[in-house]
Amino acid sequence: MVLRVGVVGGGQLARMMIAPAVELGVDLRVLAEEEAMAASLAASAVGDYRDADTVLAFARDVDVVTFDHEHVPQDVLAALVQAGIAVHPGPGALRFAQDKLVMRARLAELGMPQPDWAAVSTTVELQEFLDEHGGRAVVKTPRGGYDGKGVRVVSAASEADDWFAALAEDARGGALLVEELVDFSRELAQQVARRPSGEVAVYPVVETVQRDGVCAEVLAPAPHAGDRLREVAAGIGVAIAEGLEVTGMLAVELFETTDERLLVNELAMRPHNSGHWSQDGSVTSQFEQHLRAVLDLPLGDPAPRAPWSVMINILGGPARGGLDERFAAAMAEHPDAKVHTYGKTPRPGRKVGHVTVSGEDLDDVAYRARAAASSFLD
Amino acid sequence: MVLRVGVVGGGQLARMMIAPAVELGVDLRVLAEEEAMAASLAASAVGDYRDADTVLAFARDVDVVTFDHEHVPQDVLAALVQAGIAVHPGPGALRFAQDKLVMRARLAELGMPQPDWAAVSTTVELQEFLDEHGGRAVVKTPRGGYDGKGVRVVSAASEADDWFAALAEDARGGALLVEELVDFSRELAQQVARRPSGEVAVYPVVETVQRDGVCAEVLAPAPHAGDRLREVAAGIGVAIAEGLEVTGMLAVELFETTDERLLVNELAMRPHNSGHWSQDGSVTSQFEQHLRAVLDLPLGDPAPRAPWSVMINILGGPARGGLDERFAAAMAEHPDAKVHTYGKTPRPGRKVGHVTVSGEDLDDVAYRARAAASSFLD
Repeated sequence: MVLRVGVVGGGQLARMMIAPAVELGVDLRVLAEEEAMAASLAASAVGDYRDADTVLAFARDVDVVTFDHEHVPQDVLAALVQAGIAVHPGPGALRFAQDKLVMRARLAELGMPQPDWAAVSTTVELQEFLDEHGGRAVVKTPRGGYDGKGVRVVSAASEADDWFAALAEDARGGALLVEELVDFSRELAQQVARRPSGEVAVYPVVETVQRDGVCAEVLAPAPHAGDRLREVAAGIGVAIAEGLEVTGMLAVELFETTDERLLVNELAMRPHNSGHWSQDGSVTSQFEQHLRAVLDLPLGDPAPRAPWSVMINILGGPARGGLDERFAAAMAEHPDAKVHTYGKTPRPGRKVGHVTVSGEDLDDVAYRARAAASSFLD
Repeated sequence: MVLRVGVVGGGQLARMMIAPAVELGVDLRVLAEEEAMAASLAASAVGDYRDADTVLAFARDVDVVTFDHEHVPQDVLAALVQAGIAVHPGPGALRFAQDKLVMRARLAELGMPQPDWAAVSTTVELQEFLDEHGGRAVVKTPRGGYDGKGVRVVSAASEADDWFAALAEDARGGALLVEELVDFSRELAQQVARRPSGEVAVYPVVETVQRDGVCAEVLAPAPHAGDRLREVAAGIGVAIAEGLEVTGMLAVELFETTDERLLVNELAMRPHNSGHWSQDGSVTSQFEQHLRAVLDLPLGDPAPRAPWSVMINILGGPARGGLDERFAAAMAEHPDAKVHTYGKTPRPGRKVGHVTVSGEDLDDVAYRARAAASSFLD
C-alpha cells in the first residue's frame, strides 16, 4: 500500500517535499492556488484553500492532509476533521499559528519565556504600553502577517491608527498585539518534529540573520552556542511542540537577549526557512521529517552531516540574465554549493531559491555560501 | 528560461533524477514504457522507445534527450540527431555500451587493461579459446545482457550451443564474446561524469559486492585502496570517458586481480547502481551530476560527505507485510539509514529499493546499513 500525503498550498515548501516523497515512495498530492506554482509537478488539483468543498474533494483520496502554509481557515479544517480525515498539524495546534494573540496567551500559560506583550484595542491602551516600555514597541496584526508584513515598530500610538481602523471594520473585532522591543544580540531558531503518537526529534538550534524583516542567512548550528543555550532552546522547542500538540515540523523563532536569555518571537507549524540547511546538511532534511511526522512514521536522525552548514536565500533574482544563466555561473565557481530553486519568476525581494554549503570551518563555509549566492544577484 | 531534460525510459534511474531536477529547477520529462512505472510522477508520455516517431514526438519539446537505459536502437538515435536534437550520451558513445564486442575492440585500441577476449562465431572457435585459457571461460551475448543475464561461465563449447543457434537466426549475424575467467580478489567501480564541452568530474573508486550476478552492496570509497589503485582507476575512467566521448555519467566496472591489476569488466553510460551511495554520501549525487552533464552545465563536486558510505540493495522485498510496513520497522530501528524506494511491486530478486548509511567507521556503517536493509526481508 502506498502512503498518500495531500499538501494544501503549492509554494516552495510543498515543492521541497517532492524530492523526499519520491525517495520514500510517498504519493504526494498538492492542492495549488493556481497553475504553474512552485510545486506544480505534484499538483493534483488547483483551487481555493478557503473553500471547504474544494479542500474536502482534494482530501478524499489521501491518508493525511498537511500544509504549505498556516492560512487554511478553521471552518475548513473543522470540516476535514468532521469528515474523518487525518489533519496534521491539527486545527487545535494551527489556531496558535494563525493568531498571535492566542499564541502569546497559550505560551504564557505554558510558562514559556517571551517578550512583555499585551492585547490592545484602542490607541489609549497602546499608548499606555508604550509609556511603560520606554516609548517604543512592536505592534503586530494578530493574523495574516509573514516575512515582516503586519509588523511595525512604533514610538507613538497614532502610528497604528490604520490598523485600529481596520479592526473596527472587521466583524471578528479583536485587538492588536503589542510587544516590548527586545534588546537582542541575535536571532535563533529551534526546530522540532513531533509525531501524532508523541515521538519528537530535535534539530540543533541555528542562528538566523534577517534583513528588512526577511530571513537572509542561516548558520547551522548556531555559532558560539554552549551546552546550556542549546539545551534551553531544545527544551523550549519540545515544550511548545508538546504543549500546543503540534504534529509535523515546528519552528520556534527566538531572540537571544543581550543578557543571555531566550525569548520566543514567532512560531511556524510547517517546514521553515530556518531549516533549509537540513536538505544538504542534516541526515534527515526537514522536508523528509515533516512527511514522516505527519504520516506518524518513525522519525529520522536530525543530526548534522558536517560541523557547519550555511544557507543563503536568493532574494529577488538576477538584475540581468535569467536564473539559469546565473545558475551556471554559480555552479562553475562553486562546485560544492548546493543550489535550490523554486520555479518562481524573480521580482525584487522575492525568495526565488537558496544556496547551502557545508564543511569543517565556519568562516570558510559562510564565505563560499555567500559568494555562490551572490552570483545570482550582481 | 527553464531547462528541459527528456529521459527515455521510466525506471528507477529516471525516478531518481526527479529529486535533483526539482531542486535544480530542471523540467524533467520522461518517456515511460508503460503507465505506473517507477518514474511515473515525471512521465509526460508513454510509448515504445524502439519507435522513432514516438521518441521524436517526445523529444520535440526538450533541450536534451538522455536515457534510463542503453537500449534505444541506433536508428532511433540517428533520427533524433538528424532532427537536430541534442542527445547525451550520443549514438557514437552508446554503440560501445550496446555491443560488448564493439566495446572490447575499442578499449583494446585505447590500450585499456582488460581480460583476454575474442569474438567467436562457432563452437570450434570457442573450444580453441577454452583450450588456451585453462578449459573455462565466460561467454557473453554482445547485446541485451544486464544483471547477469546473457552471461555464462562454460567449460565446454557445447554449453553455448543455444546462443550460437540464436546467432544463426539473427539477420545481423555476428559472434559471441568470450573472455578469460579472471582470477579477481574483488570488483570495483569507477564513475566519471563528462560534459559535452569536455569537463570531467571523478568520483572515488568504490567496491561492489555481487551476489548471483546482481549488485548487492557498495562500499564507498573502496576500502584498502591506496593512492596508486585510486589513481589507476580514475585514469581508466577518464580515458574511457574521453576515448569513447561519453557525455553524462559513465560507470566502469573493474576487476581487481589477485596480482593487483585492474581490468575493465563492463561499462554503463548512465547513472549506475554502484553510484547510489552518492545520493546521500556525496556532495553531488550521480543523478544531479548526470543532469548537469547532459545539460552541459558546470559539474558539481563529487567528493564524499563522510569518510564511509555503504549502499545495500533491497532485492525482492518483504516475504510478508507490505514494503511500507517494513519501511516503518527499518525507520524505527535505524533513524540514520536513508531508504530509497522505486515504487515497484516486490517479486523475488527484483531491485525494489536501496538503503544507504554514512559515517566515520566502515565496520559500523556497513553493519548498520545491512541491518536496516534486512528489515525489509525477514
